[in-house]
Amino acid sequence: MPDCLFCKIVRKEIPAEIVFEDDGVIVFIDIKPVNHGHLLVVPKEHSDDFSSASDEAVQAVALTARHMGKALMEALGAPAFNLGVNNGRAAGQLVDHLHLHVIPRFEGDGHAHWHGTPYAEGEMAEVAQKLRLVLG
Amino acid sequence: MPDCLFCKIVRKEIPAEIVFEDDGVIVFIDIKPVNHGHLLVVPKEHSDDFSSASDEAVQAVALTARHMGKALMEALGAPAFNLGVNNGRAAGQLVDHLHLHVIPRFEGDGHAHWHGTPYAEGEMAEVAQKLRLVLG
Repeated sequence: MPDCLFCKIVRKEIPAEIVFEDDGVIVFIDIKPVNHGHLLVVPKEHSDDFSSASDEAVQAVALTARHMGKALMEALGAPAFNLGVNNGRAAGQLVDHLHLHVIPRFEGDGHAHWHGTPYAEGEMAEVAQKLRLVLG
Repeated sequence: MPDCLFCKIVRKEIPAEIVFEDDGVIVFIDIKPVNHGHLLVVPKEHSDDFSSASDEAVQAVALTARHMGKALMEALGAPAFNLGVNNGRAAGQLVDHLHLHVIPRFEGDGHAHWHGTPYAEGEMAEVAQKLRLVLG
């Protein structure tokens, strides 16, 4: 995709702090990190988002994310990490090329998770039934 | 693992609203959802976390997450979804059996992403260098 920001990084037309690269993926530092070391794992093959990506891209991104998470723990002494994918604008996706966030985490770094709320009586079974109908 | 909560769900020893199952994974409704329809994708094979999971488990969980994200969009009319993995206590992991969150998202549902802050001069290159040393 000629005008895609991440395709341009893949083609080395614009600079990025690349830390890993193989045939399928490229990994570089997010320029606006949640914590220092926050990485983006990007398949070289363009897809707009995770839901439209090929099996190969999905598998490569996931295996690379595991590799990068372990590297962040070793290189930065992070005891933990988060993986995240935002699929679509309403989920916070800003660049339309699949990317997976790998964020090193530290005790007391202050990043709180979204609050979960238990279902009211009957609601959970109703949602599950809607999903089962679609999933066959 | 006899005492693992999610292994017990895999073995059907404790109830869950299961919406999908195949040879490698089971998917059920999170009982404390961020949004209704929030799912957990769990490999049947036990691993404590994402970083210690097998290639097969990592790949199966990622492909199933794509399948579930699309199902949430179709079944619930969600325009978007987030995927998330918490690897380790400091990243918010509460159950020590690998699980991937798939969260349907809706315009204006109010779940804000963690704030990113640009690096100061020289800091990004320094972090990248530490990672490259570990990654070879």
